[in-house]
Amino acid sequence: MRPADEQLELLRRGIDAITPEAEFVKKLEHSARTGNPLRVKYGIDPTGIDVHLGHTVPLRKLRQFQDLGHTAVIIIGDYTALVGDPSGRSDHRAGLTKEQVDANARDYLAQVGKIVDLSRAEVRRNGEWFGSWTFLDVLDLTRRMTIGQVSARDDFAQRIRGEKPVYLSECLYPLMQGWDSVEIRADVELGGTEQLFNLLVARDLQQEEGQLPQVAMTMPILVGTDGTQRMGKSLGNYIGVAEPPETQFGKLMSIPDGPMRQYFTLLTDFPLAEVDALLGPGFNPRDAKEVLGKAVVSQYHGTEAAEAAALAFRRRAAGEDPVEIPEAPLGRDQLDADGRIAPPKLLVALKLESSTSNARRVIEQGGVTIGPDRSPVTDPRGPIAVEDGLIVRVGKRKIARVRLA
Amino acid sequence: MRPADEQLELLRRGIDAITPEAEFVKKLEHSARTGNPLRVKYGIDPTGIDVHLGHTVPLRKLRQFQDLGHTAVIIIGDYTALVGDPSGRSDHRAGLTKEQVDANARDYLAQVGKIVDLSRAEVRRNGEWFGSWTFLDVLDLTRRMTIGQVSARDDFAQRIRGEKPVYLSECLYPLMQGWDSVEIRADVELGGTEQLFNLLVARDLQQEEGQLPQVAMTMPILVGTDGTQRMGKSLGNYIGVAEPPETQFGKLMSIPDGPMRQYFTLLTDFPLAEVDALLGPGFNPRDAKEVLGKAVVSQYHGTEAAEAAALAFRRRAAGEDPVEIPEAPLGRDQLDADGRIAPPKLLVALKLESSTSNARRVIEQGGVTIGPDRSPVTDPRGPIAVEDGLIVRVGKRKIARVRLA
Repeated sequence: MRPADEQLELLRRGIDAITPEAEFVKKLEHSARTGNPLRVKYGIDPTGIDVHLGHTVPLRKLRQFQDLGHTAVIIIGDYTALVGDPSGRSDHRAGLTKEQVDANARDYLAQVGKIVDLSRAEVRRNGEWFGSWTFLDVLDLTRRMTIGQVSARDDFAQRIRGEKPVYLSECLYPLMQGWDSVEIRADVELGGTEQLFNLLVARDLQQEEGQLPQVAMTMPILVGTDGTQRMGKSLGNYIGVAEPPETQFGKLMSIPDGPMRQYFTLLTDFPLAEVDALLGPGFNPRDAKEVLGKAVVSQYHGTEAAEAAALAFRRRAAGEDPVEIPEAPLGRDQLDADGRIAPPKLLVALKLESSTSNARRVIEQGGVTIGPDRSPVTDPRGPIAVEDGLIVRVGKRKIARVRLA
Repeated sequence: MRPADEQLELLRRGIDAITPEAEFVKKLEHSARTGNPLRVKYGIDPTGIDVHLGHTVPLRKLRQFQDLGHTAVIIIGDYTALVGDPSGRSDHRAGLTKEQVDANARDYLAQVGKIVDLSRAEVRRNGEWFGSWTFLDVLDLTRRMTIGQVSARDDFAQRIRGEKPVYLSECLYPLMQGWDSVEIRADVELGGTEQLFNLLVARDLQQEEGQLPQVAMTMPILVGTDGTQRMGKSLGNYIGVAEPPETQFGKLMSIPDGPMRQYFTLLTDFPLAEVDALLGPGFNPRDAKEVLGKAVVSQYHGTEAAEAAALAFRRRAAGEDPVEIPEAPLGRDQLDADGRIAPPKLLVALKLESSTSNARRVIEQGGVTIGPDRSPVTDPRGPIAVEDGLIVRVGKRKIARVRLA
């Protein structure tokens, strides 16, 4: 194992806070001295998540711990997920079924496996322990927290001030999450900054159970591709880990300049000095974003796919046809005796437009070109001669190569 | 069944509030019309209770419902009692053991049986339902209440303002109590005024479960024999249901005049008009308290014992010997040749004093008399002649009749 101070320097990258940092240093030193890895916890409820780059921030940190020789412990909150979102419900147990939860957990782990080395990680489901709890066990847990403590939590305090309901069930979540730490004897727990309260609850529980309390390592919230709001699926400003390389690359090229440093810091391993150079004097946003895009995409699709995505993006930006043009079949019986077809009919047959009226409009707007020399097609009524291999373009994105059949 | 309005008039005696009263009237009317008895709930945690007159206030109301043909349902909170008082504890499950709870419940029911007709009552233990609950069931229950609702509760609000902790576990109690009402389909629940919040929680739960909500009937808190503070064991101002008739009667004679009307109203069936007469012009506190004392004592020990206790009290107050004087054996070998004995030795032999030095002191203070003419014994060294049947008195309370053996 590397010396504790070296580990600390690496692990401090991109984090928001370590609470309390002095304890973390002691834990690292003890671990480096004895060779006992730290147990680093990260938990998530399998409620059907498309993992996006925002989620990868703590997951990448988890991986970093693994690479330094520590133990990653992933908690799947299968038990809590069975309950579902409590807000505004009056019906019984409206959460997910056991089957849904299991399927979600599998799906989630498949995505997580792109970031964390699952072969070296401990994956635990909190149903392992909570599944056999009785009412008395729960009562016992709820003796560990007061209304005052719960109300001090930022998000709850806001809702209480706004006279929005905070259900007692929601107060149980931090206790459950905290108990997970007791069960797995966590040394460190990772989470977003908004998780700090929950991460500290575990400390009290662990101490009451005679364990050394865990350290909370909180990570900043990644902004979305809009550059302002938190990345999230519902806001449509996210980049999914499972999205194709071209999509990921294109979205990364679209971000504003503002969040670039955050993206480099949190989503890549680029030495921060190099990041400074890239974003410093003479900064070229386009080039810097290409570096960023390749670095991120290669993590999920490999270097080759990342390079290809970058190339395709460049060609499209330069108005060039992509390297690989999808082929579209066209029956010869659709052509007239002279081998010609009306342009709207052609676009629909090639599935470039959904209706002839749409096709007619885009032709009249000058959005259609054909052939290597990009001849414009502007008259919907003037039939065009079609040969096998003819390239047809609609707007900037849609393209097809005719395959006569 | 009697008409609803007659029942209502009887049941309104001594109560604090019926919430909401209009619903109660409807329930009574429906019951009187259909002959279906109301299900009237009263719950208690068997934490080792000496039932005192304060507890009898709701229990007597329960009996009144029984006498009107309704069903008494007594909930023994055996499940909650297993948890124990949560305040300030950090150790695991410091509540009562199952055996203690069972013993307490038996003991409690034996006392309750003096007020409620147990042969016609339903006795349920909430472990029947809560015993098989899982964590998910509890979570589901805790979705039914918000922090705001809990914080509005009077006693909690006071503690929150005073920055004293309110534990989450305590927030579960009203939900559990409310769920008991769902399980037994309560129409009415009885409790002290401080219970109003808890009694109303049940209404929400019942409605969510498709039941007609119960009505809360709250009773005033009985003041103790000091006339100011709530009757309670820890304050030493209580009159226990299991205490001997003389003790009960004596304590009732000792109360100040202030709470007499409350005692008559809540602890006896005296028509309120008669109470008005007793406590009205020409009011004689001594006589009125004797009426009260007999009325209360006869409920727990029968009329004869109550009359005897009253008589004994009167005689003692008048300085007369009690009707029945306990006999104490004295060996003839303790007497000298002239049939005499030293007074201190006599008091110890008759078990009126524990030591000759104590006996000497009380003799010197003039507290000892003998014989029908109450001759004072003032010289500890002057031996007295003892005949069979000699009465010996020490102070106002201790008396014995010598039985030579």
